[in-house]
Amino acid sequence: MESIHHVVIVGAGFGGLKAARHLANAPLRVTVIDSRNHHLFQPLLYQAATASLAPSEIAWPIRSLLARYPNITTLLASTVGINGEKRTVLLDDGSEIAYDTLVLATGARHAYFGHDEWESIAPGLKTIEDATAIRSRVLDAFERAERTMDPAEHSRLLTFVIIGGGPTGVELAGTIAELAHETLRHDFRNIDTRKARVVLVEAGPRLLPGFRESLSEYAQRALTGLGVEIRLGHPVTECSADGVKIDGQRLPAMTILWAAGVAASSAAEWLHVPSDRAGRIIVQPDLTVPGRPEVFAIGDTACIAMEDGKLVPGVAPAAKQAGRYVADAIKARLRGESPLPPFRYRDAGSLATIGKRAAIADFGWIRFKGRLAWWLWGFAHIYFLIGLRHRLAVALSWLWIYLTGQRSARLITQSEARRPTAGSGG
Amino acid sequence: MESIHHVVIVGAGFGGLKAARHLANAPLRVTVIDSRNHHLFQPLLYQAATASLAPSEIAWPIRSLLARYPNITTLLASTVGINGEKRTVLLDDGSEIAYDTLVLATGARHAYFGHDEWESIAPGLKTIEDATAIRSRVLDAFERAERTMDPAEHSRLLTFVIIGGGPTGVELAGTIAELAHETLRHDFRNIDTRKARVVLVEAGPRLLPGFRESLSEYAQRALTGLGVEIRLGHPVTECSADGVKIDGQRLPAMTILWAAGVAASSAAEWLHVPSDRAGRIIVQPDLTVPGRPEVFAIGDTACIAMEDGKLVPGVAPAAKQAGRYVADAIKARLRGESPLPPFRYRDAGSLATIGKRAAIADFGWIRFKGRLAWWLWGFAHIYFLIGLRHRLAVALSWLWIYLTGQRSARLITQSEARRPTAGSGG
Repeated sequence: MESIHHVVIVGAGFGGLKAARHLANAPLRVTVIDSRNHHLFQPLLYQAATASLAPSEIAWPIRSLLARYPNITTLLASTVGINGEKRTVLLDDGSEIAYDTLVLATGARHAYFGHDEWESIAPGLKTIEDATAIRSRVLDAFERAERTMDPAEHSRLLTFVIIGGGPTGVELAGTIAELAHETLRHDFRNIDTRKARVVLVEAGPRLLPGFRESLSEYAQRALTGLGVEIRLGHPVTECSADGVKIDGQRLPAMTILWAAGVAASSAAEWLHVPSDRAGRIIVQPDLTVPGRPEVFAIGDTACIAMEDGKLVPGVAPAAKQAGRYVADAIKARLRGESPLPPFRYRDAGSLATIGKRAAIADFGWIRFKGRLAWWLWGFAHIYFLIGLRHRLAVALSWLWIYLTGQRSARLITQSEARRPTAGSGG
Repeated sequence: MESIHHVVIVGAGFGGLKAARHLANAPLRVTVIDSRNHHLFQPLLYQAATASLAPSEIAWPIRSLLARYPNITTLLASTVGINGEKRTVLLDDGSEIAYDTLVLATGARHAYFGHDEWESIAPGLKTIEDATAIRSRVLDAFERAERTMDPAEHSRLLTFVIIGGGPTGVELAGTIAELAHETLRHDFRNIDTRKARVVLVEAGPRLLPGFRESLSEYAQRALTGLGVEIRLGHPVTECSADGVKIDGQRLPAMTILWAAGVAASSAAEWLHVPSDRAGRIIVQPDLTVPGRPEVFAIGDTACIAMEDGKLVPGVAPAAKQAGRYVADAIKARLRGESPLPPFRYRDAGSLATIGKRAAIADFGWIRFKGRLAWWLWGFAHIYFLIGLRHRLAVALSWLWIYLTGQRSARLITQSEARRPTAGSGG
């Protein structure tokens, strides 16, 4: 066994998983290391955070996704470093895994632009636990408001601030507005949930900067139609348990969510190689790490410049394409073939959704918006889910929400605010 | 409003929810208080703990279940006491809710028979969080074993002890055996999950003491067929992070689950009224609390003796029947009618399942076992779920497991053992 070429892939997100699957049944062995036991379908995580989908509908055990490939081993472990000279990956239990080729697909986490103390106040959305915590916070805000008589506190409890006007911020704002103004409408006796304020804050001049201006404008109109207040052009300068400060004004809010920025994992530090401002490794055109041809970096771990000088965006399709490219490059090397041409990202188009009836789609040569784009968005996402089981479950959940307006995943669990008290009701 | 008769129901389990729904649209107002925002379908909680169902498939937001009844208010709050003289319920935020009639349906929690220190080692199964934690522990044991070379530690990691041979213990043991011996079989490279030991410990002479002996014997044979080791006749005398001690013998085990006993909530202490050994209020034949005709206790909060001297069992149908009885009693009082005859529990039969192919059913006049009982069990549980949405989702999940053997809810989240490390893989 030991003489067979050993590829270690750190991270089983879109890029790492795609690379592993394209190395299946090749004459080499693969070890996939991830600190989580599940692959997460990040594009729908905001729906788990807003009670539309259950966590298990958008996550798969990595082990079972790779079980059918005998040359692939899955390891649930946290990576804490890399020894580039010895060619080993260091794990949290002190053990080391030797590699011949290493693929770094460790993803990104939230970045608070030097305000790490905001993290506990304004949680971001990267993991299942994040989604469960956000869902509990949002639902708990309404529960507290129902019990509060003080008008100022009342309005603070029913103000939801989302920081960041990219796709995640737009999707969170749209869904929380629908939750407040439609789903929960008849459920409370003392509060009118339609009076909840959902405020979307974007420091730049427009929402969805990755899309064309006409689509940004459409998204803004659609969100406004759902009752979302949009604040453009000013960053949040203060963030506390009381609320936020924007453009010198205080906005009292109990629930603050972070969708403003991400930073790469520590992979660049592990290898002591140059990174961009977001911490991403600046890779060669063939996605290898400078000076280490046996180490590849892909997805949100890598800053990839294309031949035209443009950067590859940090989206799922780009990570998947890079994963497949790396698998092909490794196989070509092993066969002694000449190196592949530089990695090229093929933009398959962008989709974003605003609530349950509108969406925007931009395929370069054609653009959609409104209901047609929404159906397209829905079908595309169901198509990209892994396995018939999840496709059926998500389709059923969405159909139900579409027809009845009811969201079934409205559980408050693990709430910091409301832990179980021994011997209390129910 | 204030002059209308006010019924406060503490606890929205099977009993409390049934009482509330039967008081809907009556000429009185109802407040339902629960420390959780969801009603839980307890009989299927073991399936959430063993990765067969998602938590949202067996839990419903109480607020939305009661939203359509204008005379019912839902309050998410922990009850900390009762002032029987003033007729108020004390909540954890210091506020008080006045009642004219009070229904205590606060349920039960685990009892460790004087060994409260065992709780963190051997968690029980009462809440969604319990189920998620147990699921994570069980799956994590296999993950750790995959990385362990030491043979003794290996066998400790792959030993699962379930304490208590009632329906929950039998169901947990059967499902964990299936998970180990079938579902996970192909997923690991270093361990053979079929060698995992699942040990079910019952201090009494037989499993399922609530059923007839012939059915107990059948359950024992079915569990043995699934590879479960059964230890009867000796209680666990020690419980530590290393394992358990039974009949003087040490059994090293990493995962220990508690299904042995429950105790009622603190309701009896709140009211300073007599309780049985399990802490349940000894109620009058009309389910009122002695000396307090305006206070009812039902479900696991109450010890109810029937005219023949037998005690009403602590099962969901009994709680529901008591909930309906109390609602009828309250309405009869308000109408000035004569009191209802004493509460009588009608035993609709008992069902228990052993893995995914066998079950036992006892309806008194007829008994089933095996595959027919399993189908009966499945249909009965889908029937008792609330709402078409949940019935469809659970039916889909079960059909999938039945056809493919795959369990989709295999997520490790909130694991104590494996918290996310900043910057680690994936």
